[in-house]
Amino acid sequence: MRGNDGFRLYRCRQFKTERMAVFTRVSEADLAAWLSNYSLGSLLELHGIPEGIENTNYFVTTSGGRFVLTLFEKLTPKELPFFLNLMAHLARHGIPCPAPMADCRNQFLGELNGKPACIATRLNGHSVTQPTVKQCATMGAMLGQMHSAGQSFAEQMPDPRGAAWREDASHKVLKFLSAQDSALLQSEVALHAEQPLDGIPRGIIHADLFRDNVLMDGERVGGLVDFYFACSGALLYDVAITVNDWCMGSEGVLDAERTRAMLDAYHLARPFTAKEAELWPLALRVAALRFWLSRLYDFYLPRDGELVNPRDPEPFKRILQNHIATKQAVWL
Amino acid sequence: MRGNDGFRLYRCRQFKTERMAVFTRVSEADLAAWLSNYSLGSLLELHGIPEGIENTNYFVTTSGGRFVLTLFEKLTPKELPFFLNLMAHLARHGIPCPAPMADCRNQFLGELNGKPACIATRLNGHSVTQPTVKQCATMGAMLGQMHSAGQSFAEQMPDPRGAAWREDASHKVLKFLSAQDSALLQSEVALHAEQPLDGIPRGIIHADLFRDNVLMDGERVGGLVDFYFACSGALLYDVAITVNDWCMGSEGVLDAERTRAMLDAYHLARPFTAKEAELWPLALRVAALRFWLSRLYDFYLPRDGELVNPRDPEPFKRILQNHIATKQAVWL
Repeated sequence: MRGNDGFRLYRCRQFKTERMAVFTRVSEADLAAWLSNYSLGSLLELHGIPEGIENTNYFVTTSGGRFVLTLFEKLTPKELPFFLNLMAHLARHGIPCPAPMADCRNQFLGELNGKPACIATRLNGHSVTQPTVKQCATMGAMLGQMHSAGQSFAEQMPDPRGAAWREDASHKVLKFLSAQDSALLQSEVALHAEQPLDGIPRGIIHADLFRDNVLMDGERVGGLVDFYFACSGALLYDVAITVNDWCMGSEGVLDAERTRAMLDAYHLARPFTAKEAELWPLALRVAALRFWLSRLYDFYLPRDGELVNPRDPEPFKRILQNHIATKQAVWL
Repeated sequence: MRGNDGFRLYRCRQFKTERMAVFTRVSEADLAAWLSNYSLGSLLELHGIPEGIENTNYFVTTSGGRFVLTLFEKLTPKELPFFLNLMAHLARHGIPCPAPMADCRNQFLGELNGKPACIATRLNGHSVTQPTVKQCATMGAMLGQMHSAGQSFAEQMPDPRGAAWREDASHKVLKFLSAQDSALLQSEVALHAEQPLDGIPRGIIHADLFRDNVLMDGERVGGLVDFYFACSGALLYDVAITVNDWCMGSEGVLDAERTRAMLDAYHLARPFTAKEAELWPLALRVAALRFWLSRLYDFYLPRDGELVNPRDPEPFKRILQNHIATKQAVWL
């Protein structure tokens, strides 16, 4: 399960999966043997999760509790420690994210059936498609808490969808676009190449906290998942990515009530600076640009055999256009 | 809440408390301000726990979850990191113990109202007074898992109730004892001064896993608590301490069925060595001696104003005598 780039990722059963995938099979015998490296008790149940496009996931129940086993199909043992250490860090600060379990060597990352593998706590809840105002507020508060907790995380990770990527990806898709779209894309990429968000508070950002990466347990946030786009960045950018998804109304126009609820609650957990308030319209634009561009890329330049059904880039273009036209400065 | 030494410690509501104590008051305003150092959300509820003789404990509910706040009345900021790091280590290995939450400085230990303080996850379950055979098995497995998980913990802690303490404490209580009890105590202290348990597997031991330090959630172990006697030691000694409490029948004679269930389950999680099997009767004796002696000490030499109602040392004397007489070698 990776990202809200070009393709719908199917976390929850209410989403119909277009491609059901358990890439690497794990038998009960394989897992029981592997679990002898852990202190999680004996294996009771194992179920493949037919969701995810870049990892293989299983629900695992042991005498010790409920877990998710992930076999990483693309991320490498060199890349993974940042993400696993980050989740462990956030969990020890009380943020409800999957907490990787350490093995008898005190390591989070193991290997199972030839793949890098990790077993982490399983969280409660399910993602919602139509969040209420209250849920947007809860989510805003949680995002602020996550940003605060991330401040003491020592590791850094460049944004894989930052300015250099925008430059490169936009060059590659321009030839597929109308003159109008091409002009829009170029001017926006040029605008944000100037890094207008420099100089505002930075830290660890999730960078993909769409509704389908959050498990709601009633009105409570039960879990934040899919940290594999997490990186160092402007915290405001993460807020904008989240608002662009959670608070979006029809026709790509932000719903004022949900937006205000999310921002107010975020602000209580992590107050914005004056500079952040000023840059909010630009943050919304670059957040919309990032997903418009990645969806264009995946639509026109699909990775070989990657997926059946790329996501439509159009909604994010509309969102971007509206942000430009209206400077949707719903603010405190 | 500290230890099964001379005094009953009141973890669960089914135990009548003889001394209800919240030594240090914490108001909602105090706590709300203190919680701003954490990423646990906003304070919803605060309840003092009228249990515990050495710490002040509160149940705390925040928008992020359920926690226990502990203000340490005796342990110092120099002593506490071992225990807090140990609990965090075990939690990240999936052992259900209170997981200390880190603050914005990434520290587990803070200060609140002038006392060292920590907030940790609240676990489910309640202690049982008459464990079933099944519960003894579950507990045995959990103890084996805890010992395995502790193997990768790097810190060490001498046993505060080891040979030197036995020597010292026995000297101090001898004058209060009958000639017969005095002879028994002296000969046992002398026997174990030879350290017959040297040379068997060692690691982190809880050293006080009596029934009242374990929360059972139905047949599942919901929580291991009160790690403030944890130290480095022979793993077999920890098994013997646990068996002496969980599997004891009437008249200080081990119940064979519960003992076998606990040992079998432990063995599956962490197989015994031949040397451990051979030393089992001695482990039971030294484990009984430790609690007979600490209860004698607290009975005859109560710390000033410490407690109202010391525990009766006699049951552990009977257990010790039975272990000597019968070499209760219930074994695999």
